[in-house]
Amino acid sequence: MNYASLSPREVRALIRAEKITGQTAGMCRGYAQANLCILPKEYAYDFLLFAQRNPKPCPILEVSDVGSRALPLTAKGADIATDFPKYRVWKNGELVDEPTDISDIWQQDFVSFLIGCSFSFEGELLDADVPVRHIEEGKNVPMYLTNIPCVPAGIFHGNTVVSMRPIPPSKIARAVTATAAVPRVHGAPIHIGDPASIGIRDLSKPDFGEAVTIHPGEVPVFWCCGVTPQAAVMAAKPSIAITHAPGHMLITDIKNSLLKE
Amino acid sequence: MNYASLSPREVRALIRAEKITGQTAGMCRGYAQANLCILPKEYAYDFLLFAQRNPKPCPILEVSDVGSRALPLTAKGADIATDFPKYRVWKNGELVDEPTDISDIWQQDFVSFLIGCSFSFEGELLDADVPVRHIEEGKNVPMYLTNIPCVPAGIFHGNTVVSMRPIPPSKIARAVTATAAVPRVHGAPIHIGDPASIGIRDLSKPDFGEAVTIHPGEVPVFWCCGVTPQAAVMAAKPSIAITHAPGHMLITDIKNSLLKE
Repeated sequence: MNYASLSPREVRALIRAEKITGQTAGMCRGYAQANLCILPKEYAYDFLLFAQRNPKPCPILEVSDVGSRALPLTAKGADIATDFPKYRVWKNGELVDEPTDISDIWQQDFVSFLIGCSFSFEGELLDADVPVRHIEEGKNVPMYLTNIPCVPAGIFHGNTVVSMRPIPPSKIARAVTATAAVPRVHGAPIHIGDPASIGIRDLSKPDFGEAVTIHPGEVPVFWCCGVTPQAAVMAAKPSIAITHAPGHMLITDIKNSLLKE
Repeated sequence: MNYASLSPREVRALIRAEKITGQTAGMCRGYAQANLCILPKEYAYDFLLFAQRNPKPCPILEVSDVGSRALPLTAKGADIATDFPKYRVWKNGELVDEPTDISDIWQQDFVSFLIGCSFSFEGELLDADVPVRHIEEGKNVPMYLTNIPCVPAGIFHGNTVVSMRPIPPSKIARAVTATAAVPRVHGAPIHIGDPASIGIRDLSKPDFGEAVTIHPGEVPVFWCCGVTPQAAVMAAKPSIAITHAPGHMLITDIKNSLLKE
């Protein structure tokens, strides 16, 4: 089955029927995929404010109504409780389960936050002939915890997590302009070169994901990463939170090209 | 006194001392000015969500902590209760007072929303040699209620209010690219030409502000307007809301050029 050419609605139906339970990378080419964070309403204002104060690591695509499993703006007909291939359930900051369906633990006070994902801006980089090393090497992107503090909001606080892509000097400007054009999926880099000054000691030992090859002369370029809000949520230890499992995303009806508006 | 060349901190001090009580247009050239909406905490989540769902008419620059009169991100040392030249106090959707200081009616449950203002993007237009007719004619910008619905959030709903500037056909593309570069102050136009299709019957009769001359061949270009969230707040009739008086803005420490990031 060639999932790249199926529509988002078709792939969501296959995921809902548990005919797809794996990662979604490469599916429905051209459509934005999204991260998930579900919290009880009592935490929703603080989380929305954290996102407003930290828009580069936490670009929100849609917020559900309280208790609703629908996402009418970004994925018509989708069911938040069934249309991600895999979820992670966190209680008091600890991972307790990885179900493929959360219908049976749904709460009427849940608010769902759909967050932009770097899959969208990597398409922009590739279109601009900027190499994306972890894709070339078939790895997960390397991610690092920095010393750059997020602006806190209520119970949520923490430092920024960044993803890194090594870029040849001649293509850095193009990498900046290509990603600046998509502010709703992390936008332009937050830092270019000099890992030590943002608290990264060793590029070969990422805090999340996998290390990639850096060719001689290439410069490490750092973008804000959607792991930032997840780390802030885990640190705040809410009674319950549900996220997607890494790489197991929702495929939205929004074309990546529309994220430029 | 030449207020254009004073620093934002100096002008805020003059406003706090009530040595300036008039409109702030033209003061502190190059610095962003901001709209205000203060609501009790019980309404803050719905309002923040309304802004998230309608970012073009409602670009939020900063949200205060509950009860705090400080704006540490955009105007260090400012006092929300004294540093606007004039306020409007609304009870149950009705205007009840226009004080120059709200210290004596401050509530510990107040949340303040600072909202981007078109003064910033008009600088972009002038820099790009695009004419701004209401400035040429010394008038308030013409604003119109459209038939374009906002995405509702909780108690807040309503149609989009737009501002209009007539532009010669040869300069429309430049007007689009210049304002698209500042998404935090309304961004690119929402509609170009054909007022009837967005529910505007007569350009000579704006719903807010003043009509301006449209020269033969010029096209009316419409941008989302910060009056939209104020209209949504008034329609929701909260027990209390406080806004700035039109034109009586906060002068922030943020340079307009930084709103491009």
